[in-house]
Amino acid sequence: MLTLSLIGIGCGDPEHLTLAAVRAINAADLVLIPRKGDVKSDLAELRRTICAQVLRNDRTRIAEFVIPVREAYQEDYRKGVDEWHDALAATWSQEIAQHLGSEGRVALLIWGDPSLYDSSLRIARRLDPSPAIEVVPGITSIQALCAAHSLPLNDVGEPFLVTTGRRLCEGGWPHGTNTVVVMLDGGAAFQSLDPAGLHIWWGAYLGMREEITMSGALAEVGPIIVAARQRARGRHGWIMDSYILKRRS
Amino acid sequence: MLTLSLIGIGCGDPEHLTLAAVRAINAADLVLIPRKGDVKSDLAELRRTICAQVLRNDRTRIAEFVIPVREAYQEDYRKGVDEWHDALAATWSQEIAQHLGSEGRVALLIWGDPSLYDSSLRIARRLDPSPAIEVVPGITSIQALCAAHSLPLNDVGEPFLVTTGRRLCEGGWPHGTNTVVVMLDGGAAFQSLDPAGLHIWWGAYLGMREEITMSGALAEVGPIIVAARQRARGRHGWIMDSYILKRRS
Repeated sequence: MLTLSLIGIGCGDPEHLTLAAVRAINAADLVLIPRKGDVKSDLAELRRTICAQVLRNDRTRIAEFVIPVREAYQEDYRKGVDEWHDALAATWSQEIAQHLGSEGRVALLIWGDPSLYDSSLRIARRLDPSPAIEVVPGITSIQALCAAHSLPLNDVGEPFLVTTGRRLCEGGWPHGTNTVVVMLDGGAAFQSLDPAGLHIWWGAYLGMREEITMSGALAEVGPIIVAARQRARGRHGWIMDSYILKRRS
Repeated sequence: MLTLSLIGIGCGDPEHLTLAAVRAINAADLVLIPRKGDVKSDLAELRRTICAQVLRNDRTRIAEFVIPVREAYQEDYRKGVDEWHDALAATWSQEIAQHLGSEGRVALLIWGDPSLYDSSLRIARRLDPSPAIEVVPGITSIQALCAAHSLPLNDVGEPFLVTTGRRLCEGGWPHGTNTVVVMLDGGAAFQSLDPAGLHIWWGAYLGMREEITMSGALAEVGPIIVAARQRARGRHGWIMDSYILKRRS
């Protein structure tokens, strides 16, 4: 039997690792490290660092592999994602067959938490042969963002919505909540909102050496964030950021 | 100077602890462990177990203290919470003054993550004298729930709402999302919804030895969960549960 362990590793700080994640990494026969080619945003270096720091099992092998490139733009978003997941599943299956065969424990180190805006669970269900799946939760960028700002995410007894930059642009401020978390935002989607009464807590490269955080009234801080975001992306060649918006009545 | 470290410890499994949490516990001069009296739901035993397992600093002292009881029912919910936070802050200040004085590092081990449906950040801001505040994120019951079910929380590119049992009862199915996470639900609020088309992933005592999970069509599984919840509460004397609902169109 094959077991696939999807291990959340947090979002940049190797100390985000849980004791359960350390145990799961050391229980693996094979750790697969995906690479996008020669780009820093694949975070292969972070995964190598984590393995070097916590792996004590001599029998655990590490294999790096190059993942298929996702079509930059496809008219049908869902179909594009579906095809990309199929291609990734084929690559994972091939790597597992090559390095392990049909028996043993394979681990993938998942940025953040495998349950949050991550495709690994969906890809895992397409693997052939089908493995048993284990999930080890990890610290998400939402949590790192709140921690960096010492911010309670929800107001007392109140709900919050977690959404994407795309959705925020399309739909405006969501109905029924005064707190919105925005993930997967490639272009500072908060600019599409009327900033009156809105407050933002923003962070990029959370948990990493490059971490930047800013907060304040959106009307004031929004343009500063847009500029800082552009500079940081230029300097590092990539950016991953998220933010929380709160509306005060 | 006084530093207050709010350390997320996850939701029951001592292996939910992150390496950063282990480091922060060992950096503390004083670890405060709150008790509700003689009830298991205060989780003092879990906090003692964690300290026994990871504390290696001989200079770190541990002090247990009894926290004020929250008024079971008050007409003005917000006012009740406010007064309770004031009372807790007074108790924390008193314990810190008694065991540490006005200088050093105090740690509180926070169930789940200090940013999610937790009052410690709000209480910390009321302390006198005012400490520097540090937050160490921890695994939440939402993450433990998703991991237990190998469930991706969001659908691809889609938002989700996190809310409370009270809110779900009052407002029905929220506008604009097909995924809802329900926390702080004392009475199986999902019973207030029309179950047609809804699927539930439920868990109680997540991460603990007593963990129970169930999932399925709400119409089918809902009544079974209600009965299981009642039995478990009777057996253990307390229950903490949460669940995810998804609507399929």
